[in-house]
Amino acid sequence: MNFCPQCGAPVTSKIPEADDRLRFVCNSCATIHYQNPIMVVGTIPETGDRILLCRRAIEPAMDKWTLPAGYLENGETLQQGAARETLEEAGYQIDDLMPYAITNIVRINQVYIMFRCALAERTGAPGSESLEVKLFRPDEIPWQEIAFRSIHDVLRLYCADREKGSFPVHLLDIG
Amino acid sequence: MNFCPQCGAPVTSKIPEADDRLRFVCNSCATIHYQNPIMVVGTIPETGDRILLCRRAIEPAMDKWTLPAGYLENGETLQQGAARETLEEAGYQIDDLMPYAITNIVRINQVYIMFRCALAERTGAPGSESLEVKLFRPDEIPWQEIAFRSIHDVLRLYCADREKGSFPVHLLDIG
Repeated sequence: MNFCPQCGAPVTSKIPEADDRLRFVCNSCATIHYQNPIMVVGTIPETGDRILLCRRAIEPAMDKWTLPAGYLENGETLQQGAARETLEEAGYQIDDLMPYAITNIVRINQVYIMFRCALAERTGAPGSESLEVKLFRPDEIPWQEIAFRSIHDVLRLYCADREKGSFPVHLLDIG
Repeated sequence: MNFCPQCGAPVTSKIPEADDRLRFVCNSCATIHYQNPIMVVGTIPETGDRILLCRRAIEPAMDKWTLPAGYLENGETLQQGAARETLEEAGYQIDDLMPYAITNIVRINQVYIMFRCALAERTGAPGSESLEVKLFRPDEIPWQEIAFRSIHDVLRLYCADREKGSFPVHLLDIG
């Protein structure tokens, strides 16, 4: 941040009074501009003994497999965001969302919130972010071709929980 | 947002190509400035049969009782943020954080993530945001004087779960 989004004057990075962190503060109107981590929401869509993965059509990690996930938008709940991303990236409606994994990725100031869910109706083709979608049994998951560490770790937990038949909510830290 | 934080030129609210939402887009450098919900993290600190509440020293809801909670900061995990807020507002260290409730408050683009935890050492006085801290048994909670709906609803669930002796992770929507 170089300029105040409110008044357009230059900002300075400094610790405001009664604070203990560097913030961008406007040199003119003195507004303090806080910056906070953002949420990524996504799903593990289940149908029978298989789950859905998408093969990425875009960088980073183009051609690799991932779970449907993306940034939570203003004006939607976590569940709505997760369902929207699943529809956009996989072309499927979903039901029965249950929170499953919360992952801190401090290095990039992101928190992933992943839901287990049931695949419902297919309502379209995969969106422009996916080359294809495919259903995998746990023993078919292409572990060497998973797009991101955060997705890999959640899938590993999920497969282990399936063996046990119990799905507690997990809290993970990456990096 | 009126001006581009990057280059200082005016921004226009419009739907970028290949998008379906209004975003602030810079008239000069064309940067798209996304705005996303933010996270509030907090705790239900337990000791024996009691939990800790703080009486607020600041508006909104000054004088009302609340759980320690505040905005997640860049550079910290949810657990670190929840522990920091508990130390700042109540003056206590905590242990054994377990995710307990995730609350969507879409109207204000916030997601609350609350942890159960064990009260550990008291390391200082309550901070400037609290008038006092006090331990309450469930039957002593001042329900008419709880600061926020989000805190009220989580406390109700918590008291009901204590009766049952089981604490599943809850997903709540407010508003």
